[in-house]
Amino acid sequence: MSKEKQFVTEITPQGEDFSRWYIDVIKKSELMDYSPVRGCIVFRPDGFEIWEHMKDELDRRFKETGHRNAYFPMLIPESFFQKEKEHVEGFNPELPWVTEAGGEKLEERLAIRPTSETIIGHMYSKWVQSYRDLPLLINQWANVVRWEKRTLPFLRTTEFLWQEGHTAHETEVEARAETAQMLAIYKDFAENFLAIPVIVGQKTPSEKFAGAVDTYSIEAMMKDGRAVQAGTSHYLGTNFAVAFDIKFLDRENTQQFAHTTSWGVTTRLIGALIMVHGDDRGLALPPKVAPTQVVMIPIGPPKTREQVIGRVDELYAELKKAGVRVKVDDRSEVSPGWKFNEYEMRGVPLRLELGPRDMENGQVVLVSRLTGEKRMVAQVDLTVEVERMLAEIQSGMLERAKQFRADHSHSVETLDEMKALLEEKRGFALAGWCGSEACEKQVKEETGATSRNIPFEPAEHKTTCLVCGDKAQHTVVFARAY
Amino acid sequence: MSKEKQFVTEITPQGEDFSRWYIDVIKKSELMDYSPVRGCIVFRPDGFEIWEHMKDELDRRFKETGHRNAYFPMLIPESFFQKEKEHVEGFNPELPWVTEAGGEKLEERLAIRPTSETIIGHMYSKWVQSYRDLPLLINQWANVVRWEKRTLPFLRTTEFLWQEGHTAHETEVEARAETAQMLAIYKDFAENFLAIPVIVGQKTPSEKFAGAVDTYSIEAMMKDGRAVQAGTSHYLGTNFAVAFDIKFLDRENTQQFAHTTSWGVTTRLIGALIMVHGDDRGLALPPKVAPTQVVMIPIGPPKTREQVIGRVDELYAELKKAGVRVKVDDRSEVSPGWKFNEYEMRGVPLRLELGPRDMENGQVVLVSRLTGEKRMVAQVDLTVEVERMLAEIQSGMLERAKQFRADHSHSVETLDEMKALLEEKRGFALAGWCGSEACEKQVKEETGATSRNIPFEPAEHKTTCLVCGDKAQHTVVFARAY
Repeated sequence: MSKEKQFVTEITPQGEDFSRWYIDVIKKSELMDYSPVRGCIVFRPDGFEIWEHMKDELDRRFKETGHRNAYFPMLIPESFFQKEKEHVEGFNPELPWVTEAGGEKLEERLAIRPTSETIIGHMYSKWVQSYRDLPLLINQWANVVRWEKRTLPFLRTTEFLWQEGHTAHETEVEARAETAQMLAIYKDFAENFLAIPVIVGQKTPSEKFAGAVDTYSIEAMMKDGRAVQAGTSHYLGTNFAVAFDIKFLDRENTQQFAHTTSWGVTTRLIGALIMVHGDDRGLALPPKVAPTQVVMIPIGPPKTREQVIGRVDELYAELKKAGVRVKVDDRSEVSPGWKFNEYEMRGVPLRLELGPRDMENGQVVLVSRLTGEKRMVAQVDLTVEVERMLAEIQSGMLERAKQFRADHSHSVETLDEMKALLEEKRGFALAGWCGSEACEKQVKEETGATSRNIPFEPAEHKTTCLVCGDKAQHTVVFARAY
Repeated sequence: MSKEKQFVTEITPQGEDFSRWYIDVIKKSELMDYSPVRGCIVFRPDGFEIWEHMKDELDRRFKETGHRNAYFPMLIPESFFQKEKEHVEGFNPELPWVTEAGGEKLEERLAIRPTSETIIGHMYSKWVQSYRDLPLLINQWANVVRWEKRTLPFLRTTEFLWQEGHTAHETEVEARAETAQMLAIYKDFAENFLAIPVIVGQKTPSEKFAGAVDTYSIEAMMKDGRAVQAGTSHYLGTNFAVAFDIKFLDRENTQQFAHTTSWGVTTRLIGALIMVHGDDRGLALPPKVAPTQVVMIPIGPPKTREQVIGRVDELYAELKKAGVRVKVDDRSEVSPGWKFNEYEMRGVPLRLELGPRDMENGQVVLVSRLTGEKRMVAQVDLTVEVERMLAEIQSGMLERAKQFRADHSHSVETLDEMKALLEEKRGFALAGWCGSEACEKQVKEETGATSRNIPFEPAEHKTTCLVCGDKAQHTVVFARAY
């Protein structure tokens, strides 16, 4: 890796301009690059590897809970979108259309999938005939395209990568249990793998997925106080089963429509990860998802260099053998200090320094990206100490993000209070809501904040609607969102 | 899993109609299903899992050799295809075009990628500036679309999945070494993971990749004697570097064009796997790639059923813990004999039977899908014995495929000899070739066979061209191909 520039100093501080900070960080750390295609980015190796670690972990959890992967065609005939009314209304404005292929105009336009309920529903109607074929538990890792008006790298791109689970069940109870199970997996994954605390709850009807009966989400707070919807799980009822004729003979030999679900997370999680943990020095990546967990930097004068590097290489082999994602930077053309800044900017959780004096003392220095703490540890204990410190950083990052969220979560009684709040401070606002779409709309129009979800476990239960003052049906989290 | 029909007996014998056998097998074993989109298939879970095992193994090998994954946009502006003349001529007839999106007609049409040299070339020109940026070793796992006239499940589908490696190097020597390295990885993977013996060699100029200087391939023989190109590796010279301006300052501070390569394998390998190993009983999957490696079937009368199943479950846990992909079929509604047929049809390499007498004797019966051999083994040695037998089946399948290929490889002197051969027998023909396109074309027109490649290690060196009788420049493998 060459092209070293003084990019470390070129990052706009978060407090000055959070959006510029974000773009500076993801470009300079080489997570992504802009592409010549409108709203599409290139996932460079370090950015893509973050997704690979997310994918491996989620895939393991999906398989543990009985799901299997499959792959369905990306091109979907136009007529398929007409079959579920809400679905077509929701997605039609965003569809890209293939109209010509192989030198000819197509008889029927083909959409590039924005999501796959329709084509999967069509196939499920062929595969499901008896209750014995259920539950059908399938997941797909795929690219999807939505022609978005505003785009932002990772968080909202024309093409993005995601997983979409699609399941079919005998009963509503079972399908709802699946919806809840996947939501719980997303929550646990976000908190214990990405160190991103999330609010789990139900979407209001106006924010639910086009075609769903109920949509549930996990919502995360970025460092500018905005929200990112980090994952969704939908109970689709029999809507798609009716539209695509997914019917089965039940245990009493009666024809029934299946109850279906879908659930997904996308590469926008990479954006959330950066905006939750990053700081003015650059990225800060939780160890579980970091492409490089430990960077090893030999230090000291040229005369001891060879000897130090020899020892570094030995310790490298040891850590690698233990499964640590470790990298040595033994370049002589840049100074150790320069490297320290570079790897802080790239968000590497742990730095290991080894110099001639450490050689004599049989120790190394470990430095945490999270706290800056320096720890001298004996070389003989290296693997254990590295693993301990990585675990501390992982849990410390979650705690810090929880604290940040607590510091930026507010409770409001009225719309005026919310307006004042969002002008003065960043963050989420908890408020009562009467349940009417009109009141929800008014919040959005007057504050720019949308209802994120109705949390399962709100910090408190509000009693009156922030807009109309009527009795609150729900306690809702409102926030400006990406 | 329900929907058990008597499908085992519904497979057309290979000798009667190989094409029908193939479709019967992949449908009945639920590897795939047809989709409503022209030439596109659905990869059902068992079919997709075969691809997942291939992907994991290749990915590991790519990373071991220093490559990293990235992801580039799927939609490619039309103007990009115009930049490399041969490339556009080769791919233009097969491109599907997005012409409308988000409710508007696009100013420039966007092709769905048939391969990504163009967009990746464009990005590399931004990333490569100095010799220090080289080599650039990137791989992408992605879907691609080619509007094919004739399609066949797995082997040639409109949309397919693949990996495409794209690398850039300082010198021709290095780039050629990369091309050779990846070809060697493909060969080793095909033979030692898929148990498919392959012929490694160079494509003739008329069969090379559109835009390459040299194309190399691995070619496999199916059971009907036809060839499948199972992987390709291209040395692209500076063709794409010139077209996309991938330039760097070399060690002497002079501007140079980079030398690039690309290499790929696709989901057609699933089709090859089936056509190399399958037989009249159905699929036969090599253990390393089989979704289920061992199926456990409890046998015996109802009164001992519970006890037998209890022991089966214990042994299942043991095998699973050892990393064996194992499945128990304890259904009571179908007979053991029915299950034996079903899992043979599905190609499960090893069957384990356990009945009351085996319980008494502390043993189990293992039955090989490859040879039908039954082996009594002590339950205490189960894991070791299962692993041993799976390894034997894996190597036995490669040996059997090698023997089949040897039996169906022929040497011919003249075009008439080749015609007679291909009418009477299945298989590959080794022949001399003068190097002229005219002679190569005549072979194709008169026999339907194409040059597969110029093998690095031909069984013999031919001295005269089979068509014109002139001195042979190369010894070529000809075959009808999928």
